[in-house]
Formats: sequence, C-alpha cells, structure tokens
Amino acid sequence: MGMIGGGQGAFIGGVHRMAAALDGQIELVCGAFSSNPEKSKASGEELFLPAERVYGSFAEMIKKEKNLPEGERMDFVSIVTPNHVHYAPAKMALENGFHVVCDKPLCFSMEEAHDLVRIVQETGQIFALTHNYTGYPMVKQARVMVKNGDLGTIRKVVVEYPQGWLSTKLEDSDQKQAAWRTDPKRSGKAGAMGDIGTHAENLAEYITGLNIKEICADLTAFVDGRLLDDDGNVLLRFENGAKGILHASQISAGEENNLNIRVYGTKGGLHWFQMEPNSLYVKWLDKPQQILRTGVGELYPESLAHARIPAGHPEGYLEAFANIYRNFAYCVQARLKGEAPDPLYQDFPTVEDGLRGMEFIEKVVASSESEEKWTKF
Amino acid sequence: MGMIGGGQGAFIGGVHRMAAALDGQIELVCGAFSSNPEKSKASGEELFLPAERVYGSFAEMIKKEKNLPEGERMDFVSIVTPNHVHYAPAKMALENGFHVVCDKPLCFSMEEAHDLVRIVQETGQIFALTHNYTGYPMVKQARVMVKNGDLGTIRKVVVEYPQGWLSTKLEDSDQKQAAWRTDPKRSGKAGAMGDIGTHAENLAEYITGLNIKEICADLTAFVDGRLLDDDGNVLLRFENGAKGILHASQISAGEENNLNIRVYGTKGGLHWFQMEPNSLYVKWLDKPQQILRTGVGELYPESLAHARIPAGHPEGYLEAFANIYRNFAYCVQARLKGEAPDPLYQDFPTVEDGLRGMEFIEKVVASSESEEKWTKF
Amino acid sequence: MGMIGGGQGAFIGGVHRMAAALDGQIELVCGAFSSNPEKSKASGEELFLPAERVYGSFAEMIKKEKNLPEGERMDFVSIVTPNHVHYAPAKMALENGFHVVCDKPLCFSMEEAHDLVRIVQETGQIFALTHNYTGYPMVKQARVMVKNGDLGTIRKVVVEYPQGWLSTKLEDSDQKQAAWRTDPKRSGKAGAMGDIGTHAENLAEYITGLNIKEICADLTAFVDGRLLDDDGNVLLRFENGAKGILHASQISAGEENNLNIRVYGTKGGLHWFQMEPNSLYVKWLDKPQQILRTGVGELYPESLAHARIPAGHPEGYLEAFANIYRNFAYCVQARLKGEAPDPLYQDFPTVEDGLRGMEFIEKVVASSESEEKWTKF
Amino acid sequence: MGMIGGGQGAFIGGVHRMAAALDGQIELVCGAFSSNPEKSKASGEELFLPAERVYGSFAEMIKKEKNLPEGERMDFVSIVTPNHVHYAPAKMALENGFHVVCDKPLCFSMEEAHDLVRIVQETGQIFALTHNYTGYPMVKQARVMVKNGDLGTIRKVVVEYPQGWLSTKLEDSDQKQAAWRTDPKRSGKAGAMGDIGTHAENLAEYITGLNIKEICADLTAFVDGRLLDDDGNVLLRFENGAKGILHASQISAGEENNLNIRVYGTKGGLHWFQMEPNSLYVKWLDKPQQILRTGVGELYPESLAHARIPAGHPEGYLEAFANIYRNFAYCVQARLKGEAPDPLYQDFPTVEDGLRGMEFIEKVVASSESEEKWTKF
Repeated sequence: MGMIGGGQGAFIGGVHRMAAALDGQIELVCGAFSSNPEKSKASGEELFLPAERVYGSFAEMIKKEKNLPEGERMDFVSIVTPNHVHYAPAKMALENGFHVVCDKPLCFSMEEAHDLVRIVQETGQIFALTHNYTGYPMVKQARVMVKNGDLGTIRKVVVEYPQGWLSTKLEDSDQKQAAWRTDPKRSGKAGAMGDIGTHAENLAEYITGLNIKEICADLTAFVDGRLLDDDGNVLLRFENGAKGILHASQISAGEENNLNIRVYGTKGGLHWFQMEPNSLYVKWLDKPQQILRTGVGELYPESLAHARIPAGHPEGYLEAFANIYRNFAYCVQARLKGEAPDPLYQDFPTVEDGLRGMEFIEKVVASSESEEKWTKF
Repeated sequence: MGMIGGGQGAFIGGVHRMAAALDGQIELVCGAFSSNPEKSKASGEELFLPAERVYGSFAEMIKKEKNLPEGERMDFVSIVTPNHVHYAPAKMALENGFHVVCDKPLCFSMEEAHDLVRIVQETGQIFALTHNYTGYPMVKQARVMVKNGDLGTIRKVVVEYPQGWLSTKLEDSDQKQAAWRTDPKRSGKAGAMGDIGTHAENLAEYITGLNIKEICADLTAFVDGRLLDDDGNVLLRFENGAKGILHASQISAGEENNLNIRVYGTKGGLHWFQMEPNSLYVKWLDKPQQILRTGVGELYPESLAHARIPAGHPEGYLEAFANIYRNFAYCVQARLKGEAPDPLYQDFPTVEDGLRGMEFIEKVVASSESEEKWTKF
Repeated sequence: MGMIGGGQGAFIGGVHRMAAALDGQIELVCGAFSSNPEKSKASGEELFLPAERVYGSFAEMIKKEKNLPEGERMDFVSIVTPNHVHYAPAKMALENGFHVVCDKPLCFSMEEAHDLVRIVQETGQIFALTHNYTGYPMVKQARVMVKNGDLGTIRKVVVEYPQGWLSTKLEDSDQKQAAWRTDPKRSGKAGAMGDIGTHAENLAEYITGLNIKEICADLTAFVDGRLLDDDGNVLLRFENGAKGILHASQISAGEENNLNIRVYGTKGGLHWFQMEPNSLYVKWLDKPQQILRTGVGELYPESLAHARIPAGHPEGYLEAFANIYRNFAYCVQARLKGEAPDPLYQDFPTVEDGLRGMEFIEKVVASSESEEKWTKF
Repeated sequence: MGMIGGGQGAFIGGVHRMAAALDGQIELVCGAFSSNPEKSKASGEELFLPAERVYGSFAEMIKKEKNLPEGERMDFVSIVTPNHVHYAPAKMALENGFHVVCDKPLCFSMEEAHDLVRIVQETGQIFALTHNYTGYPMVKQARVMVKNGDLGTIRKVVVEYPQGWLSTKLEDSDQKQAAWRTDPKRSGKAGAMGDIGTHAENLAEYITGLNIKEICADLTAFVDGRLLDDDGNVLLRFENGAKGILHASQISAGEENNLNIRVYGTKGGLHWFQMEPNSLYVKWLDKPQQILRTGVGELYPESLAHARIPAGHPEGYLEAFANIYRNFAYCVQARLKGEAPDPLYQDFPTVEDGLRGMEFIEKVVASSESEEKWTKF
C-alpha cells in the first residue's frame, strides 16, 4: 500500500493506516504524505519507511512505483486527502495500473465523479470507497435480514447523523479538520451533508437495498459566517414506496458521532447505533424484542465473517474500517492469483456508491434551494 | 368529578380515573359512562357509584347535577369520549358552570375548536386538556432549562412518536381503540397525526417555548384500505429560526409508545424518552454529559414540585397524568376559595393548546396534500 | 381502610395512601396518623376525613371502629409506623377482627414475629406485608419463568440493593427517615440489612421459589458513630445447591434505589432492575437475548394481570405498590362475599414472608459477628 | 516480535498479533507457533514469515534468534501458550536477553511465579503481562480519579466477571479453548478464578490502588464432572478498610464477557462496563451523575494518551489490548535509545502484578476449601 495524504496533523490518514495494518494482510510500503516534501519526508520517517520510498508528490510516487519490479512496488494506493484532492491521484493511479482505496466522499464535483466511474470501468482496477460504517458486523446482519425478508416489506427508514463539534466557528481557530470541511473550495457544495450526510445515505441504502428516489431538504448554516451547511433535515421517499427521514448535523451540541438507523417493515423493525455498534436491536410485531450481538449465536454468515474475536469483546470503529481494507485486500489478492473471490468478502463500497453519494450532495443542495417540494434523486 | 365516557371496554377512561384518584384530591361522584344507558349503569356500579348518579347521557348528567346543592354536585366534568364527542359535552358543561377536563385532541374540527376557545373565555371556567406527557417532572425540568437559557439559543428540535400497534388492519377486528381512531367520522381529518402527532407538537412547543411557524409534511396510510394516515414525517421551522423534525407513526412495527424529544441549543442539548421518563440526558458542548433524574439533586422547583416519591422509585405515565389532574384540581380549589393559585401548579395544557393542536392537524394534512414546500402554521 | 401512622412529615404513609387509592377499590375512612393527637388531627383534616374518625391513638381507633356498624366501620388497618410500632397495633387489630396491611420489615424482634404469625393463624385474618417490589409485573413474569423451568435449573443468583443517601451522618440533621432507621431502638438489630436487605432477600426467594439455607455475611457501619450497619455483603447458598450473592448498602454514594436481581439457570438468565422496572432482560444460552416488557406480547397471565395500561406507558413504584393493595383488597372482598379468590390475585407477601425477613435480619447480623464461615438460615 | 504459541486454531494468539500490529510500532518477525513443527510452519506461512524464521520450538527460536545480528533479530517474545507453558519460554527468553510479553495468568504455580519475579529482577529485562482490560482509556481515567481523591475515601468495590460459555460440558467437544482451561494439568489450581477471576482482581486493584488483604471465597464446579471451578463468589476486605465483592463465573448462561466494576467513595461512585468500554459512569453524592466518554472533554492525560480516534468512534477490546503492546514497545524503544520513558506510557501490568494474580488463585482456592471465614491475601 502507498498512501497519498495523511501526514502529520491529519486525522483520517492514521485511521486508514491502523485499519490496513490490523489484520496483517497489508503493508505500508511507500507514501506521498503531504504536498510539502519536507512534511512528507518527516511523516515517512515516523512510519519507519525507507527514505527512497517517501515521495514529494502523488505523481512522483505513482510514476516511480510503477517502475519498480512487480512484487516490490505497491499494489494499491490509499487516498486520504481532502475532497478536492481525490480525483487527480485516483485517476492517475487507476490509469497506471494501481488499485485504489479512497476516502469519502468520492470527489469534488459531479463531473469528476462520472469520470472516475468511467475510468474504473475502463481500467478494470479495483476501487474501494471507505464508507466505513458498512463494515460493522451488525450492519451486515441488518442488511441480510432485510434482504431475506425477515422484516417483511420495508415501510419506514429513519437515519440520523448528529455531531456537535462544529457548534462554534471552529474553522477560525487552527483546527485543520474544521477548516477544509467548511471551505467550499476544498469540501465541495455541501458541508455536513457531504461529510456525514453521505454516510447516512449510504448506510440507509446499504441496509435496505432500496434506492431513495425523491428528497425534500432543508439545509442550514447555523453558525454565523459559515459558508456551507452545518445541519440538514431531509424527507425521503424510497423506490418501493417506503418513506423516511435523514438528518445530519454538526451543530447538535454535545453529540459525538451518533450515527444511527431504524428500519421498519411489516413484520418488525431494527435499530443500530454506531456508538454501540455490537448490538442490533430487533423489535418484532408479535414477539419480544431481541438484541443480536456481534459474533453471538446464529447470525447470518455475512455478519459472522466480519467479526474477529469472540462475543463480548467489543469491536469498534477501527475494526469496521479494517473490514473494508481486509475485503479490498482479499479481492486484490484473488485478482493477483487469478481466483474468483468469495462473495462473502466481495463486500465494500464501490465507485458507484461514491457516485451515488455525489448525486446525493448535488440533489440535497438543490432541493434545499428549491421552492418545490420534491426533488428527484 | 363527573365522567363522560369511559365505560366498560374503554382505555383512556380508566386512566383518567386512576390519575384523578391518585392524590386523594378528587372524588368520582357521578358519570355518564356510555351513550347506552345499560352500559353506563353497569359501569357505574363497578365504580361503586350510587345508582341515582349514573346517568344515561351527558346532557342528563349536566342538567341534574346542576340542580344538586353546591358541595354535593360535581365540581367538574372529565370528558373521555372519542374525538367527535368532545365538543358538545364540553360546551354544555362550560355553559352550565362546570369546569372541564377533556382528553386530546381538543375536538373534531376547527370550527368546534374556535368555538370552545370562545366559550372558555366567555364563561371563565377552567379547562384542562390532557396532553399528559407535559406532566412528567423531567419534561418540566427541560422546559425551565430552555427558558432559563441553560442550553443557549435553540437551533434544532427532533421530536418522534413511533408506535407499531396499527401495523396491521386492526380496525377490522373488534378492537374498539383502533376502530374509532382510524375512522374519519369519529377521529377527524388525521389518524396518527391527530392521535399522537399532536402530543409531539405539544411537547416540542411546551419544552422549547417556541412556536412552529412553517411545516412541510409527508403523510401516508401504509395499511391497505386505511382511510387516515398511519405515518407522517414533517420538517419544522420555528419562529426563532430553529429547524426541526417531527415524525409520528403507528406502523413502526415493534415500537410501543416511544415518544421522545431532543432539543439542541448553542450550549448543549437535552434528550428525553417517554418510556424511561425519570431520566433527562443533558449533553454539553464543553463538559461531560449528565443524567438528571426525577427528584434528585438541584432540579428546578417546577420539576421538584411534580415528583411524589424519593429518587429511584420510578414514577410513570399515571403519575404524569395525575399531575395534570392535581394541578387542575388545585386551581379549581383556589377558585372555590377565592385565592390566587401558586404559579408552580398553574401548569396544565389549556384550551388554547388544544386549538393549536387542531391547527396542527389541519395544516399537516394540508401540507401533505400540497405541492408547495412550506405551509404556514 | 384505617391508617396507623403516616402523619405529616412521613414518607411511606403517603405512598400507602396513593397505592390504596389508585384502583378505586379502597377508601381511606379513618386514621390514627400520629401518637401526637394534634398532629393526627391536622393530618386527618388534610386528608378530608371527618373529625370524628381521626383518632389520637391506634388503640382508640381500633376500639371505636369496632363499635361502628358493619359496612360503615373500616375493613382493615394499614400500619405505616416505624418498625418498633408494628407489633402492637397489628396484634390488636387482628384480635379485634380487622385485616392488616403492614409495612416491612414485619416487626422489631423475633419474638414479636413468631407471635404475629401465631395470631394471624389463630384469628384467620388476612395479613399483607408490603414487600412492594414483588408487585411489579415483570417480577411476576420472572417468578413464573423460573417456576415453569424456562431457565432450567437455577445455579446462581445475584441480588443487589445499593443506595447512597446515608453516605453522610444524615441522622444528625433533622431528617426523620434517617433518624429512626439508624436507631437500634426503633429499627431493630440491623440498619441497611433490615431496611433494604430484607427486600433483596424477599425478592430473591420470591422469584426463584428457592429458600436460602446458608449465609456468610460481612456487615459494616462505614459512617463514624453510626450504630447500625449501613452496608453488607453476603454470600448465599440456596436449598437446591445454587449459590449467590446479596449486597445492600446505603453508603454507595450516588446510587438512588438501585435494587436489581440476576438469576442464572442451566438454560438462560434473567435480569431485572427496579429503576427500569418495565423491562425484563432474558439472556439465553443458545439464542439471542430478549427484552420482555410490561404488557407486551405473550407474557404469563400472572404478569399480565398486574399491568394496568397498554405497553409503552411506563408503570412505576406506586403501581407495583398498588398491586399489593389491590390483591389484598380483592381477597378481603372475596372473604366478605364468601367466595374463593382467584389464585391469580392471591399474590401478596404474607406474615410468613415477614417472619422470614426477620430471621434474615437475625442471621445476617449473627453471621457478620461470627468467625465461622457459614450460618444456617 | 517473535511469537510463542498462537498457531492455527488458537484464539489469543491472533488477538496478540492484531494488538501488536495496530499502531505500526511492532513487526512480527519470527515465531514458534506450535510444538508441532508442521503446524508451526503452516501458521508462519499464513503470516507471511520467511520459512527460516519459523521455528519448531521456542527453545530453537530463542537460540537461533540470539545469534542473529542486532537490528535483525527479534527484540522481544510474546508468549501466548496455555498457562503451563508460560514459565519455561519466559525464563529462557529473559535469560537470553529478550524482553517478554506474556499472556495471563502469569504461570502455573506459585513456585514458577516467584521464580519469574526473581529472574525479571535479576536480568533487568522488561516484562509485560496482558491483563488487557487495564488498557482501556476509561479504566485509566477511573484509576486517576481515585488516586486524585475525586471520589473521596473508597468504601466499597464490586467487581464482576460473568460469562456463560462453559454452562455445558464444552470440554467434551473438541473446543480447544474449553479443553485446556478446564484441565488442572494445563490451567493450574483454578478454572474460572484463574482465567477471569484474576482479571477482576487485577482490575479492582489497578483502579482503586488498594490491595485486597482478606478474602472469603465460595467456589463451585457446577457442571457435572468438571474438575475446576466454573463459578466463584468472594467477599473482599481491602487494606484501607473498604469492603467488596468479587464474583466470576463461566456458567452465567447468556452472559458474553460482562466484566464490570463499581467503586464507591465518600464523595461519589464510578461504574465501568467492559462491553461498553467508552463510557465511565460517575455518580456523585451531591450533583447529577455524569457519563465520561473516551476522548471527550477534560479527561486526565493518562486517559487521553490512550485513545486513538476522536470521540464517538468506539474503541474496543483490540485497541485496549494494543495499548499494552504500545506502551511496552515504547518502553523497549526507550531502553534501546537509552532514554527515560515518559511515565504516561510506562503503564502496563508487570511480573509483580502477575505474582499477585497467582497468589489470588492460591488463596481463593484455599479460602473456598477452608471452614474459616477469612483468609489473608
């Protein structure tokens, strides 16, 4: 693995490295950790990389790595830069024969998004987007329960992603994370909706297997002088007639990272809370509610395959993130060996999911600005 | 107290009787428990009432009780009939000098609602509407916290009322509760929105002290053949610029009576769940979250005044309901004694709250049918 | 009902009155609310009793009420005085033909306890002891589940009753509740163990249907100068070979009234928490854990019969307390009518349960003072 | 790092590898994964190790690695074998200049334990024992809160470790984990008490900073034919006069891995649950209870230093385990550089903690067999 971005002071780069390292399947072999070559070099040293494989730019990295002998050069790149620096390195990596893991949202604009979909299809390279919340074992259990009809026909979906960390104008301090996320030039058209609303949208569609087809949004920038939305409330209509609500917020004071989802069907409902990810609450129409737990009892194979340790030993955010990497690495290995991957592990967000997220950003902003009630999605 | 409705087989009548009895301040002295005189009589006997004070109709009761000597006749009526039989007995009772406790929603139509407001104002009688959820001590704590600015300026409100009991076409069985609630002739323009959506609206405005000024609603009747909504999702805009979401549902399979509210301000947020009503979760922007508990520590006097037993002895639905009755009875007693009531106890939903609930029903139905995004409220 | 004790400033008297009033089956008709006749009179007035039925002593009350015509005189007495004033009024009431409800623990000494058992047996009067926690619907569900073998053979029981309110020397203030509970002359041999340990013992034996047969106790008075235990840890051995732990404490700072129990059998375990009494957590050996809820779904009839309102409307401490009164009143009515009571409602703690509680106090104190490991119980 | 044990089919070996890999500070360079050379070889291949560094025995590994040039040879060994195979490799590693990480309990007998303490002291090598639960950030917060007197003087401690997985005679199946844990020849004198009771003892002493000085134990083998205890209840007395309870069980049907602790002082109490490890509940005597959360707000530096990702991203068992490895690796690096380690990271269980755990096993078994109430510890 070669990393692009994630130098000193970054948040998500470290997460990607820990997630990649966890299962002993992926080795960090090179990086272009910063557009500042000095910073990149310092970061590489901290990570025990040989100096010659710490690069000053992603372009240099991709070019030089390509020239290394097979088996020695990196197998894929991991892109952990702000949104406006996803497209270029992804495109170049793909076109030079490298597989790609990319942080979400996919990129900066719809044009870039469509282009990336095309490039992935044309090159045939493997592309994973780290909508990491779908990596949790109990999210996978939820998905299969819906798919198998355990809940009956889905009627209602409520997905929430409240945070409170942008309740004040944090971007005016030197908080790097706040700065780029609230800057339209680096983040894109949306703030909270792009950063976390897309996670909510992805989670809802992943679990239900249903596409949202119409939305009605009300976005707000509550903090004075903020340029992008820091809160949004959205009515949803799904393709099968189910209705729903999505709200995401970064001004819900006191909230940490409270992503959660409830899905109700004709036979029962399920509830999952990211901050307590090892429990899946299942409420039945006609029998006592249950708590399904990571790794306990007769879960679906898709869920069991993504738990690492016996029941009662909590697995968290990094383990879920690592499931994306592990599955991606598994598919890359299968490709290298010329084998067909086991569908159980062929499960990670794709460039198409990324395109859908970009469309969500586009439409949710359009809907919020529109006087019309419903916007097609 | 004389009761109108609440005969054998009813649900809410028994709740009103228990709530009224709890504090030893109110005695049930007469009733017209059913429009069927036989049923009324049988119900009265079960309740240990003397036969001569069990009436065959509310009109008979009001007329005959009025002729009894003061001190012997009932002081007020309690109306616990389906929605379409609220207006007539309330009007007659008020105009004959009786105070009134009435179940929610206020009545059947806007016309009735406006008329009742006028009659209450003209007669000067005391009128309480049993939006009972505002009777919980921790709801009162929440209200005062917002009022005192503890949370800063309110930015976001999420209020939910999911139930699952109407997930199937229960009205086709002989379930009396389901039958009238889903019948436009007895329930009014709305189903779930009238039955429980109004509770959510009332709770949100009670706690925040803010009026909702615009709504955007999407109501659905999910169960085939059902004539009124059994689910609704609503975007809210409050008078001060706060945004919000209200959703209420009777097809959220597996949910019992999961009314809950979250209110976020610039300094912190609070969360209250009706099914665990003795805890108020307070999440602060800059300090650890707290759990405030009924009767524990330095709560506001408005909260402490509505708890009956020491901390850790859970108080529930009936106790909250009884707080409405106790405060109402206290104000009636003060009136009888010619005293000014202590504002601490002058706290129960009024006919104006009832009018607001009726407007909510009107507007939420109109918004759902409209192509326009926002409907004034 | 005639009440003995429970005048102004008391805690448990008001609880008994609310519990008795809730279901409209019991009327307070007289009382001797205090050994101080002035205080008794003032209390009676507040309770709307006619002056002639407010007595200056329990002896006066029992004598005078006995002389009233049947149908007018009280049917039973409710004794809500401190422990050292349980025996005399109970004995006199029973011997004069009145049924008795008595607060726990049964009395002051083993001699009194044995004597009361004898008197109840000889007079044939109905006697209920308010170990109120057994009145909760989910406690009754737990009991029947164990009885029916749903959990298999019981192996382990953990019952806890932590409170924190006596963490400081509250008895040195004018806190009436603290004063008598920590005074050996009024409370008896034990402090926390008598006040709340007996509730824990009663709950464990009620749910498991098993007798504790050996104990090993370590009691402590942590607060300087306190004369009775304010904390106790006890190892338990049950008659069937099950093992367990009981601990009760009034110096567990920050705890409210956190009575809870866990019972494990060969097939599964159950957990119940008094502060969230409407949930019964059932953990199975080989299937997902469940949450059974008051009034929801296929509970045992013994549980359903003790819930008043539909699912999701929380019932609390007073409702459970009221179940003791309601069942007692039902049995008294059946006796008056000469009918055999339905076993479903013949369920309240008896004088024999009270004797067992007194023995528990005796043995737990003896064990704590002993060097020997096990004390027979 | 060179690993001893942890070949195919083992549980804890994989945990150690993931924990060691997480932070990118430790590389697995060699191993003797099984006493069966074939199995060891196969395991090494799966782990991408070069064949020449996969050994057939720990003795071979230690000898050959010692002969490799510095910088190339392993820096330390990680011992993840069953209890009876801890002593020999630890002793040999230490005496040959390698640092050691060892799974708990320390070893098989008191003789071995005392000997290992001596060897560590004489060789000066760094030794870490993986009582991993002390690696959680909120456990560290709890420890510092007690140390700083935030809770006042500690009066009561309740520590529990219920599991249910040995409710049946699993050792008769081919479940490898069950087999050695219930076998006195491989596990030692105790079953549940050695496997998980020592974790509970370690956690209680780690958080309170207090030594247990007397115990009174009741151990049981509930499952027919089982040779070691599968359940134990223990009364505790601490050196400062605090009292407590420890119970651990592997027959608490339906429990996963429910380690939890409550500590009460004169000013407040704290509660921590391993299965929800990111919350620390603090209940105060005189103010509202709080929930402290991993990485949120003004925690103590000792806690913050052991969290990896921002608030609300749950960290679990592996992250806590990794904290032991990270701190150990940090101290090894400091030693290599000749620097004094930052005390903040000099925090992992030592060989002395291991000795204390072995004494706990010894004493708890002795106490259980004794007729005397208290056994010195």
